[in-house]
Amino acid sequence: MNTDSHAAGADDFWRELEADRLHEECGVFGIFGHPDAAAITALGLHALQHRGQEASGIVTFDGNRFHAEKRMGLVGDSFSDQAVIERLPGTAAVGHNRYSTTGETILRNVQPLFAELATGGFAVAHNGNLTNGLALRRQLVAEGAICQSTTDTEAVLHLVARSQRNRFLDRFIDAVRQLEGAYAFVALSTKKLIGARDPLGIRPLVIGELDGHYILASETCALDMIGAKYIRDVENGEVVVITEDGIESHKPFPKQAERPCIFEFIYFSRPDSVVQGKSVYDVRKRMGVELARESSVPADVIVPIPDSGVPAALGFSQQSGVPFELGIIRNHYVGRTFIQPTQRIRELGVRLKHSANRSRVEGKRVVLVDDSLVRGTTSVKIVQMMRDAGATEVHFRLASPPITHSDYYGIDTPERDKLLAARLDLEGMRQFIGADSLAFLSVDGLYRAMGEGARDPANPRFTDHCFTGDYPTPLTDLMNETGGVKQLSLLAEAS
Amino acid sequence: MNTDSHAAGADDFWRELEADRLHEECGVFGIFGHPDAAAITALGLHALQHRGQEASGIVTFDGNRFHAEKRMGLVGDSFSDQAVIERLPGTAAVGHNRYSTTGETILRNVQPLFAELATGGFAVAHNGNLTNGLALRRQLVAEGAICQSTTDTEAVLHLVARSQRNRFLDRFIDAVRQLEGAYAFVALSTKKLIGARDPLGIRPLVIGELDGHYILASETCALDMIGAKYIRDVENGEVVVITEDGIESHKPFPKQAERPCIFEFIYFSRPDSVVQGKSVYDVRKRMGVELARESSVPADVIVPIPDSGVPAALGFSQQSGVPFELGIIRNHYVGRTFIQPTQRIRELGVRLKHSANRSRVEGKRVVLVDDSLVRGTTSVKIVQMMRDAGATEVHFRLASPPITHSDYYGIDTPERDKLLAARLDLEGMRQFIGADSLAFLSVDGLYRAMGEGARDPANPRFTDHCFTGDYPTPLTDLMNETGGVKQLSLLAEAS
Amino acid sequence: MNTDSHAAGADDFWRELEADRLHEECGVFGIFGHPDAAAITALGLHALQHRGQEASGIVTFDGNRFHAEKRMGLVGDSFSDQAVIERLPGTAAVGHNRYSTTGETILRNVQPLFAELATGGFAVAHNGNLTNGLALRRQLVAEGAICQSTTDTEAVLHLVARSQRNRFLDRFIDAVRQLEGAYAFVALSTKKLIGARDPLGIRPLVIGELDGHYILASETCALDMIGAKYIRDVENGEVVVITEDGIESHKPFPKQAERPCIFEFIYFSRPDSVVQGKSVYDVRKRMGVELARESSVPADVIVPIPDSGVPAALGFSQQSGVPFELGIIRNHYVGRTFIQPTQRIRELGVRLKHSANRSRVEGKRVVLVDDSLVRGTTSVKIVQMMRDAGATEVHFRLASPPITHSDYYGIDTPERDKLLAARLDLEGMRQFIGADSLAFLSVDGLYRAMGEGARDPANPRFTDHCFTGDYPTPLTDLMNETGGVKQLSLLAEAS
Amino acid sequence: MNTDSHAAGADDFWRELEADRLHEECGVFGIFGHPDAAAITALGLHALQHRGQEASGIVTFDGNRFHAEKRMGLVGDSFSDQAVIERLPGTAAVGHNRYSTTGETILRNVQPLFAELATGGFAVAHNGNLTNGLALRRQLVAEGAICQSTTDTEAVLHLVARSQRNRFLDRFIDAVRQLEGAYAFVALSTKKLIGARDPLGIRPLVIGELDGHYILASETCALDMIGAKYIRDVENGEVVVITEDGIESHKPFPKQAERPCIFEFIYFSRPDSVVQGKSVYDVRKRMGVELARESSVPADVIVPIPDSGVPAALGFSQQSGVPFELGIIRNHYVGRTFIQPTQRIRELGVRLKHSANRSRVEGKRVVLVDDSLVRGTTSVKIVQMMRDAGATEVHFRLASPPITHSDYYGIDTPERDKLLAARLDLEGMRQFIGADSLAFLSVDGLYRAMGEGARDPANPRFTDHCFTGDYPTPLTDLMNETGGVKQLSLLAEAS
Repeated sequence: MNTDSHAAGADDFWRELEADRLHEECGVFGIFGHPDAAAITALGLHALQHRGQEASGIVTFDGNRFHAEKRMGLVGDSFSDQAVIERLPGTAAVGHNRYSTTGETILRNVQPLFAELATGGFAVAHNGNLTNGLALRRQLVAEGAICQSTTDTEAVLHLVARSQRNRFLDRFIDAVRQLEGAYAFVALSTKKLIGARDPLGIRPLVIGELDGHYILASETCALDMIGAKYIRDVENGEVVVITEDGIESHKPFPKQAERPCIFEFIYFSRPDSVVQGKSVYDVRKRMGVELARESSVPADVIVPIPDSGVPAALGFSQQSGVPFELGIIRNHYVGRTFIQPTQRIRELGVRLKHSANRSRVEGKRVVLVDDSLVRGTTSVKIVQMMRDAGATEVHFRLASPPITHSDYYGIDTPERDKLLAARLDLEGMRQFIGADSLAFLSVDGLYRAMGEGARDPANPRFTDHCFTGDYPTPLTDLMNETGGVKQLSLLAEAS
Repeated sequence: MNTDSHAAGADDFWRELEADRLHEECGVFGIFGHPDAAAITALGLHALQHRGQEASGIVTFDGNRFHAEKRMGLVGDSFSDQAVIERLPGTAAVGHNRYSTTGETILRNVQPLFAELATGGFAVAHNGNLTNGLALRRQLVAEGAICQSTTDTEAVLHLVARSQRNRFLDRFIDAVRQLEGAYAFVALSTKKLIGARDPLGIRPLVIGELDGHYILASETCALDMIGAKYIRDVENGEVVVITEDGIESHKPFPKQAERPCIFEFIYFSRPDSVVQGKSVYDVRKRMGVELARESSVPADVIVPIPDSGVPAALGFSQQSGVPFELGIIRNHYVGRTFIQPTQRIRELGVRLKHSANRSRVEGKRVVLVDDSLVRGTTSVKIVQMMRDAGATEVHFRLASPPITHSDYYGIDTPERDKLLAARLDLEGMRQFIGADSLAFLSVDGLYRAMGEGARDPANPRFTDHCFTGDYPTPLTDLMNETGGVKQLSLLAEAS
Repeated sequence: MNTDSHAAGADDFWRELEADRLHEECGVFGIFGHPDAAAITALGLHALQHRGQEASGIVTFDGNRFHAEKRMGLVGDSFSDQAVIERLPGTAAVGHNRYSTTGETILRNVQPLFAELATGGFAVAHNGNLTNGLALRRQLVAEGAICQSTTDTEAVLHLVARSQRNRFLDRFIDAVRQLEGAYAFVALSTKKLIGARDPLGIRPLVIGELDGHYILASETCALDMIGAKYIRDVENGEVVVITEDGIESHKPFPKQAERPCIFEFIYFSRPDSVVQGKSVYDVRKRMGVELARESSVPADVIVPIPDSGVPAALGFSQQSGVPFELGIIRNHYVGRTFIQPTQRIRELGVRLKHSANRSRVEGKRVVLVDDSLVRGTTSVKIVQMMRDAGATEVHFRLASPPITHSDYYGIDTPERDKLLAARLDLEGMRQFIGADSLAFLSVDGLYRAMGEGARDPANPRFTDHCFTGDYPTPLTDLMNETGGVKQLSLLAEAS
Repeated sequence: MNTDSHAAGADDFWRELEADRLHEECGVFGIFGHPDAAAITALGLHALQHRGQEASGIVTFDGNRFHAEKRMGLVGDSFSDQAVIERLPGTAAVGHNRYSTTGETILRNVQPLFAELATGGFAVAHNGNLTNGLALRRQLVAEGAICQSTTDTEAVLHLVARSQRNRFLDRFIDAVRQLEGAYAFVALSTKKLIGARDPLGIRPLVIGELDGHYILASETCALDMIGAKYIRDVENGEVVVITEDGIESHKPFPKQAERPCIFEFIYFSRPDSVVQGKSVYDVRKRMGVELARESSVPADVIVPIPDSGVPAALGFSQQSGVPFELGIIRNHYVGRTFIQPTQRIRELGVRLKHSANRSRVEGKRVVLVDDSLVRGTTSVKIVQMMRDAGATEVHFRLASPPITHSDYYGIDTPERDKLLAARLDLEGMRQFIGADSLAFLSVDGLYRAMGEGARDPANPRFTDHCFTGDYPTPLTDLMNETGGVKQLSLLAEAS
């Protein structure tokens, strides 16, 4: 239970390196009716590890009691022990991988969250972010609710507990109707497994089937891991109820066009997943193709920034005819902790994760391809690393448009004034990064890569505010904060 | 965060050895207005360690935020680090040592518990046991409250949160009025430190003063540890409110005679504490004196069962004139974990904790003196150990009456059918234990040792149901359970 | 100090998965005269992490005392803390990453090993394997030496300690002259940093320079990590002595042609390293080119088995004109521990590490490219995974020849009867793996990729016995074992 | 494997408190031919825990291999797990509890030490201290031996390994003949269990028997723990060899009168042990009786300083007729770690371990009885604590003479200039301690309590240099150090 303050400095340093990436908050998984429910959930969460690496939890129901195990760290470390799986009996399970966007990273905040109602217990796991989470929390506390976590997800538990309806499903629908923002939920009651996506379908959720039992998961890669069959996506605004009798669909919201988050395609989802019917890998390659069409440059070699830039770089190479080479080698042994920031190590910076493959770079005109640009601090170092390795020209190409706005739907973006594209124009960014040329994929090019025509501003098909500033829901908490109302949480607790 | 299942077998074995002792559930401590609030609370809890060794917690308030640290294990291990104390800033603190009577031993259950109200946060630590805790919990859950711990103490938090009153003190009094059973509370709000004892004053709570700042503690030994002055006991049914302006006394209950738990004198409180104005050590010696008066026997040596039997044995020796000797040596290195129960070790049994001092026992008529008899399993082994060491006669004397009834006020007694004195008559017990003679202090002798005349059945001065079956409050939960209503808790969680 | 028996079953399972790979035993690093010696050594070891992941150690000398830190696990976890680096003062350091080929994995076996002579202490780190290590050990023990580790490296310490020479360098040369097999040593005395390679130069060792201070490292990637300049390779049979006066070269052995291990190029060294003057990445691509020349096949897509097959697959693709695609996605979150082998997980097998990228495989004729084939157990599963993902044909191509003989020079190969190519002919292997066709690079093709003509059996340029059975040194211990003499080690110790 | 630097400050503080006590270095145990050898050895070490609490180790031999487990911390914590015992198969075992007098407290130094000879392995555990340990070490290193521990015990291993004799017993005798100082050894070879005491028998060693199998142990309390029968003491200068054929006695030294360490009686041995045929408890009581005869004083109460002062206080009380009372209560929850030394806690000082029992002290003339006086720093605080609790007079009585000289035979005494009795005369000590009167037992009184007449300076019966300055052996290392030769150890290692 001790808080591990060791290497606090190293963590700060690591955070600095990490701060130039985007982070997704969570992956969710659920299964109903399978004798190996907990073991399969652990495997599913392992396949979804890229969506959250801070902590994981699994809750099962054995027909009589719920059982929970929550751990800091990776699924493969936390659920590696048969003894842990054996403490999770039952044929129904829900699980969660966490990357924190709200709430401190302490065990109390690790999901699935659980509550016990007079009619029985239930557990909820959440991927997304509520834009009115604090407003709900304030209202609940004023009514005498006691919040034990500092996550926005807890509001859902209290809303369910306080609902005047009798059936758990009706209470759950009562609760989600009060939410704003992005969410994909998996919830487990004593009788049902429930899945729900917000009215715009911002965060993904798919239905699969294994040995005749239904599964819910953030991405299809979790189905592939366990040998399950993909059935369909949960629709935007849909609540699905899984019991022994099969799947039941509810549509508690007015019908709306779906508007999934485009960043799932650019960065978050695993390349082997199929999101909204599209292969993520193929979409990323097409982003590289469109980028080459828009911003080609005479060069000797196309070099991906590993690993996220690889598919776009392959597309760029195939479109441009310039050879693809691993001009940067990624160090696979960089974990969550890291060598201490002495001055020397700070200078070495990015080399801890990446190193130049000099033989493919020296004397060459290099096109670097990455998926997106956040703060630009890593990019500076990689451009310099290419020059140190003897590149004669370094051209930087991004397979997505400039990120000019923060996200509030579950992506951990920096404050707006830290976003390079919100601070500088294209030439300013080029100079900052130190590249010989710099180009981004256009918004319309991005939509083309998605298989659409140009973006229709009156009716955009994707949640794309990071590039356009066009937020698809009200930002209630943000408005309140701007108005001076601050977060309630009064307790600082280490464990 | 791992659950430490290591040595589970050893724990079982250890529990078997421990099961022949009584256990107190808790010690509480609070201080208001002192710059070293957390460090002093840690010291106070250390002095109260005998009241609970499973876990400890401290909550402080720094004028702005509350800070909590909760740890499994001993105070001296958990709060030994300056870094831990530094994570607990502020001049007001409440702390708690836990021995679990309700709720699993997991960190969520470690007190003080904390809740955040619209008007600010508060923390509560509890010594005692509510006899209507489950009934309250059921009612709260039916109203939509979500319980995060499985302790009876959490009911108090929800009752405070749901009170319609405005001031924290009024909400707190609202809450305690709904409680039945035994309690000594220390509670900390953003403005006050509150202490409260149940209407009968079953569990102890004293007021002290250090450098002009007030302190609440379960026993005076905690005041002695930190060099504080004893002021007075909190009275039965009293709520004291400590602020910068001093102490304010409230009496929200109808006036009743106090009826403190007599086991605080027999076993639980530390011998150097003064409880209800009486030196615990002196009372225990007088129990030995009364016992010698009632049940003397020709003998060569008086041998205490260490350490709890020492004062009574001294009294017995001084009254009888038979010399007092350490005929049994206690092994001080027995911690909470222990050598594994191979068959051999099971046979060796009690020697892990105690060993015979042969030179003082061999060829002698021995009177063994202990404070009380629970299941008798240890006593059998100690009598045999005396015989193995060459005692010619072994007489067993108990400085309290036979325990015939279970406790429901915070003492962890076995089920009634495990209590030796509830199963067997005196001769049956003697045969079970294997002693040459066996005698208990009479109930009236016990009252005499307390400085009273004989017990007045119409108006007993102490809570003494373990010896008499005379329970001083309704046993609501017990009645319900007998009626078939079981505990709600549906979640099994390891961490 | 507890032995971590947790997840022993999982470890077995993991070992099974791992057993189909080759393992290198070690990486070494040394620096002399630099104020940040320990921090730089930690960085260097981090860059060499691929050469050994079980444990790491660093020894420094501060002009007065030696300081050692040895840890199980990854460099980035073990040496992440400034406090650890601060316990390693001094301007000279040697370090070691361990993958055990001899000796149990316990802290006593973690290098660098240290001994104290009457003339001062010294530390030694070793990459390689002595083929007469047991014979030396037997002789030393017979003479009254006490061995504390079970590594072959300890023999070197005793040989140095028992040498009758006065100067440390002379003692060291005395010692290495008695060794047979493969070694690259870095050794630190109170005055010198010493590097040495065996007479054939089987294991690599390079010299670098940073801020005017000399460095020794297993590979150039360690120099790149810290921004050091590559100077030259230590030659085969050379002993280099680094002091404040610079580098001194000694050649204590009769001159021989060098014969470096060809597996450094095929698998072990990092692709961005330059070994014996050759870019490892370029050599691997050329192996793919040669392979395509020798064994092309009509296909739609070239798919590397990540990550080791990527450069050869790029070469194969560029030579054959068939597009390169990431048809298999590697899971980067597979650490050393892993999800427990329930029956289900056993069936899922390889998916924990790899998953099919269905959109690039379905309906396609796939050429899988890997660097080498050991037992074939993983290959079976990957071929099946391609078929499950809809591949119409699966052709398997290996960028090295069949491995028919075990290694005794520091590569952890299975016993010969576990090597697929030692058990089956080509068609047998194809059937075992389940591929539509199977082809290996020829030995001459391998030499061509290395920039040579065909292999000259009278005078082969590389240590290549795994493919040819042509061992370059006597195998003394192996001969003895066959003759019935077994290892001495009589102590089983867990920590 | 991490070094636990947590609470380093607390450890310093704790050391300060501890520095006013004497410490014994070790307890040893061995058994031959018993099926539960390891479990019984663990129990024996548990009974000997008072002789060393820093670390423990057990080595067993299963007829084929030796097995070792060494752990930091208490026996009950380290060997509580059946899995640990199962890793120690075999019917012969030796074990050791360590309190370090030489060498850092790291796992490499934890005994039994093991070495492998050409003729087989052997393990040695040592209680005592060699006064020529460094001299031997220097000579061995000069001859090419490599020392892996920093204990003096390792010299024995090398002397055995280098002996030219063939039989293990002859080698062992060869080795012990070169030793000076105090030692009780238990050693295990592949065929024998060996016990040995130095020529004067300074440290104790007894022979017991269980189920027909022989046992060696530092004290009889270890025999009692496991239900074994005491046979006899190993004699001074005797080497006993235990095999399946029974016990064989060797006397390799010229005959001398025994001269056991008198501190075993005063402080170290457990009160229930019988040492050299004398009950330790009885001897301590007689020291109290002699003390009362020599230095009685009018008083109301005799108060022992718990726990070591209790038997002497009982003797003092019985002799003087003044009642014995527990005027000081010991806190049993003080472990090895402790609450952090804020300024406040420093002031509270001794109360963490002891507290006044005010009701027995207030208004009374108190005689405090302790076993011995070292630095006096704790005594000052205890006298003050008595006065704070209302004592009208405080008289301090020590049941042993003034300690004026350091020990070099295995007792961790302070440097001579830290010993209060070496710095001040009686009146100076009284003033320092703040008592109303102060008296020590005379040397002759001590001998009388031992059942002797007055001490014969020409032929003292006990090793008593701490009181007399009469060291019974040469102090070779001390002479060398004074001559400027310092310790060799050049390696600082944390784990």
